Amino acid sequence: MPIYKAPVEDAQFLLNDVFHVERYSNLPGFADATPDLVEAVLGEAGKFCEQVLLPLNRTGDQEGCKRAADGSVTTPTGFKDAFKQLVEGGWIGISAPPEFGGQGLPMLMTQLVNEFLSSANLSFAMYPGLTQGAIAALIAHGTDQIKAAYLPKMIAGEWTGTMNLTEPHCGTDLGLLRTKAAKQPDGSYKITGTKIFISAGEHDLAANIIHLVLARIEGAPEGTRGISLFVAPKFLLNGDGSPGARNALSCGSLEEKMGIHGNATCVMNYDGATGWLLGDENRGLHAMFTMMNEARLGVGVQGLAMSEVAYQNAVNYAKERLQGRALTGAKAKDKPADPIIVHPDVRRTLMTIKSFNEAARALVIWTAIASDLDRRGTHEKIRQAADDHMGLLTPVIKGVLTDQGFANTVLAQQMFGGHGYIAEHGMEQFVRDARITMMYEGANGIQALDLVGRKLPKDGGRALQAFFAEVQGFIKEKSADAAMKPYVEPLGKALGHLQQATMWFMANAMGKPDNAGAGSTDYMHMFGLCALGYMWARMAAAAQEKLKDKLKSGANGAEARMNAKLVTGRFFMERLLPETAAQLARITSGAASTMELAAEQF
Amino acid sequence: MPIYKAPVEDAQFLLNDVFHVERYSNLPGFADATPDLVEAVLGEAGKFCEQVLLPLNRTGDQEGCKRAADGSVTTPTGFKDAFKQLVEGGWIGISAPPEFGGQGLPMLMTQLVNEFLSSANLSFAMYPGLTQGAIAALIAHGTDQIKAAYLPKMIAGEWTGTMNLTEPHCGTDLGLLRTKAAKQPDGSYKITGTKIFISAGEHDLAANIIHLVLARIEGAPEGTRGISLFVAPKFLLNGDGSPGARNALSCGSLEEKMGIHGNATCVMNYDGATGWLLGDENRGLHAMFTMMNEARLGVGVQGLAMSEVAYQNAVNYAKERLQGRALTGAKAKDKPADPIIVHPDVRRTLMTIKSFNEAARALVIWTAIASDLDRRGTHEKIRQAADDHMGLLTPVIKGVLTDQGFANTVLAQQMFGGHGYIAEHGMEQFVRDARITMMYEGANGIQALDLVGRKLPKDGGRALQAFFAEVQGFIKEKSADAAMKPYVEPLGKALGHLQQATMWFMANAMGKPDNAGAGSTDYMHMFGLCALGYMWARMAAAAQEKLKDKLKSGANGAEARMNAKLVTGRFFMERLLPETAAQLARITSGAASTMELAAEQF
Repeated sequence: MPIYKAPVEDAQFLLNDVFHVERYSNLPGFADATPDLVEAVLGEAGKFCEQVLLPLNRTGDQEGCKRAADGSVTTPTGFKDAFKQLVEGGWIGISAPPEFGGQGLPMLMTQLVNEFLSSANLSFAMYPGLTQGAIAALIAHGTDQIKAAYLPKMIAGEWTGTMNLTEPHCGTDLGLLRTKAAKQPDGSYKITGTKIFISAGEHDLAANIIHLVLARIEGAPEGTRGISLFVAPKFLLNGDGSPGARNALSCGSLEEKMGIHGNATCVMNYDGATGWLLGDENRGLHAMFTMMNEARLGVGVQGLAMSEVAYQNAVNYAKERLQGRALTGAKAKDKPADPIIVHPDVRRTLMTIKSFNEAARALVIWTAIASDLDRRGTHEKIRQAADDHMGLLTPVIKGVLTDQGFANTVLAQQMFGGHGYIAEHGMEQFVRDARITMMYEGANGIQALDLVGRKLPKDGGRALQAFFAEVQGFIKEKSADAAMKPYVEPLGKALGHLQQATMWFMANAMGKPDNAGAGSTDYMHMFGLCALGYMWARMAAAAQEKLKDKLKSGANGAEARMNAKLVTGRFFMERLLPETAAQLARITSGAASTMELAAEQF
Repeated sequence: MPIYKAPVEDAQFLLNDVFHVERYSNLPGFADATPDLVEAVLGEAGKFCEQVLLPLNRTGDQEGCKRAADGSVTTPTGFKDAFKQLVEGGWIGISAPPEFGGQGLPMLMTQLVNEFLSSANLSFAMYPGLTQGAIAALIAHGTDQIKAAYLPKMIAGEWTGTMNLTEPHCGTDLGLLRTKAAKQPDGSYKITGTKIFISAGEHDLAANIIHLVLARIEGAPEGTRGISLFVAPKFLLNGDGSPGARNALSCGSLEEKMGIHGNATCVMNYDGATGWLLGDENRGLHAMFTMMNEARLGVGVQGLAMSEVAYQNAVNYAKERLQGRALTGAKAKDKPADPIIVHPDVRRTLMTIKSFNEAARALVIWTAIASDLDRRGTHEKIRQAADDHMGLLTPVIKGVLTDQGFANTVLAQQMFGGHGYIAEHGMEQFVRDARITMMYEGANGIQALDLVGRKLPKDGGRALQAFFAEVQGFIKEKSADAAMKPYVEPLGKALGHLQQATMWFMANAMGKPDNAGAGSTDYMHMFGLCALGYMWARMAAAAQEKLKDKLKSGANGAEARMNAKLVTGRFFMERLLPETAAQLARITSGAASTMELAAEQF
């Protein structure tokens, strides 16, 4: 039976000591997020995840969701009751606007809570996660009437939400989509078509399901400029706002898939379903994109979440499993063998995951703060800088945290040897579940293209320049500090590689875009390493600060934790960051050998 | 429904043009392996894999093996009939000694056929694969009586074999094993204990199952020096050699696992089962090790096999799936979108897998030739050099071909986007099945330790020196050849990194073995890249040779294939080989940050 403990202390270190969120107490919601409240909220969320959701993770995988002949879907045993507890705890709406019943706390709180939920039970966490995405879309694009009709119920968790984008013949290339919307005299639309891969498309957790659907209005242009966004509830609303008649949409089948069996992945059939336009006609993709950053950040968080829970279980096993003796002589002489955590290759593996996770969590919080400043910032300049940060870092976080998050679950599974392959230990489920995060919400190759093709050149490279300036500023600020040398020196080198790669793209990819395409994934990962390296430099500085002021930090083994931060950061610099050299070499080798073969030579 | 086509032409290129196996026609078995016979055998094997085994792969995954209350196990629908065809084709014994009914062909033929079998159906291929391992053990350690009793039936495929090593509390550290053997007056032993993870431990494919079992004779020393190897058949043999009374051993349960569901992974209970000693008392581990090289080479082949079949399906999908337009303008203007193979990031992915697979296959054949020379070589010196090669390269092939083979199945799955997560495409099964290869037959961390701790220093580094000398000799030989520069120059650089890492170990790991342990996995992968790079250099030279002599090579699109080799080799040099720089940096950073934390700081 897998274990999990929510990393509340680590989150507090990041909020209080690294990012000093008390600086933002002038912003709406932040004043409420005092250190005490944060501790209480995260502690409560952690308990719910550890005690309620984690025990449902394996049974959810084994049972899966079941579709009956009438198209109704039953979630695994225990999900319904757990969802009720989630709703009662108000977890779905902790960052939602108070005017619709939310608690208005910063979005960074939601990202932290979602990490805990996803670690404990990814399949389950997707139900509220998708609802939060739909809530964001309705806030951004709904009329007052639509907002009033749907938001309070969704924020309360009485109703859930979905996103309907993909069709059998199109996922990435939404310009090909065929679902039709026919305008009705009353201003509503009749939607007809088939959508696939609709997570939480049908289930038994909520009284209504609010579908957001991309479709093409009759007569609209072909391609991406003819797509509109609609809201179509499972049950049409009565005059009093309660769910009434069944809408003409249903779950045609459930996909049989590799993992996340506890989440219903539906084929959704729209047979003249009634829907209402969200935002402007033919601007549906634009409407989708406005909320895509947060959704993608959320998937990056899922990658981290899987890496974290897999890591915790690998550590647990490595301390318990006795096998062989340390290379430097027996450590547990009273036992028949040493725990495998004495072995350097086991430790290297654990440190690899640990040093990634802690920096990834920092990167998420740093970016979640930007998402809050983007919405709540007091000045246009602050909002713009935050929006730049979000736009630039989102594909990096989505791509890198899920690629590496998955790779880390595989590493953690490997610590178990053959036992990792056996279902009862739960490690193989983490691997299967984590795998989806690299694919959905834009496959990671698309994230890399978004970064290189869209985000780098945007606004004359303003976002990128700001990122470089911030990291370089930090390096310069610490350049005289000998204790910081093991962190800022390698970071400077890696950042130099990133700048060289960027310049290489500028010089070589304008006329030959294949040179950018062939280097995009390496560039995304290089960017990720630099961003994570910067997080480590900031965490190291914060840890050193805390260690200097021992009185303040004395309690609860904080000293040992801060020393561990310094060691783990060094490990990251020595063992993960050097990859940027190889990435630079690959990028600057160009696209020639990548593009030369004819299709039939593959 | 996944596709598969056995890479017969690629194998022929390697045998005929790269390794010139006709040079060995003076050796037993090689004279029979004429190019025509090789083509016929591989073609026949390929057909069997494509037409019989591949269609059973998904159903085998879905149905799995079933254990009845009496301990009997049923394999998935179709396996029994397919096994019958395998037996009728004589595939199990193609390289086995003719004196026991084998065909005596070189072992390299078995490795090639096993690649095809594993690509088409890994779960199925394990049944004959384990039998071949048991055959090798019986040949090496059986008395004449035991050989006569078991080998003809096993080589014919009437009976299958297993290896029983692991126990619940010990896998890597076999010194802890507890299974007991009590000597009987008639010279047999009564074996008592529990073994886990026993692949093909019980099934319905054969009339008898011959178990090789590690156990401790009563009174034997503790640890690894008190372990003996036994043979214990499921059915004891009658006087006429036919299966008679049931032995006191049985399958207690089947493991529920991530993949290879078509193979029965058994808990085996030995309740005073009758067995006979193989080899000397207390020398069981030694006896196991003598056949471990070939078994591990075989698992490396499985890693390649999964990478190959996943690649073929990804290519197929990339040519068919229409999504988006090429960065350089529409390519398939008559279609609503271009096939995704036009996109650089898709190609980069496919080329990554292709450039790995083709070199991996060469590395397998190169090493399989060594295994043949080791057994059949005419001079002691040849046999010794071949044995050195086998010992050195086996952990590299096992570790690197399975780590990267798995990573490649994940890359191939990623090409399908969300569709890759859905069971019907088969990609997710390839990922789940491939995952086991990194764990069994010695988890890959153990392979790395074996390489660094045992194989490098063995005989004063003789094997390593020979490897360096061969690669350097080749580079020198080609140094004046301009056409070979894109291959030998990067290879020389990578080899330099490997030599630096080796010297760093010599200087820093003698007194501090943790420095070797913390760098072992990187070193193994670095070694793999150099060995694969060397294979590419030799393949490039062979391809250039063939292109010069166009008359000889003209048929069957050989020119396009040889040109593809040259491009693919360049891709390998530009995109995969640069990793050695990062590996060197990681290794030479030493073990300090890896080892510093206390266990409770993880």
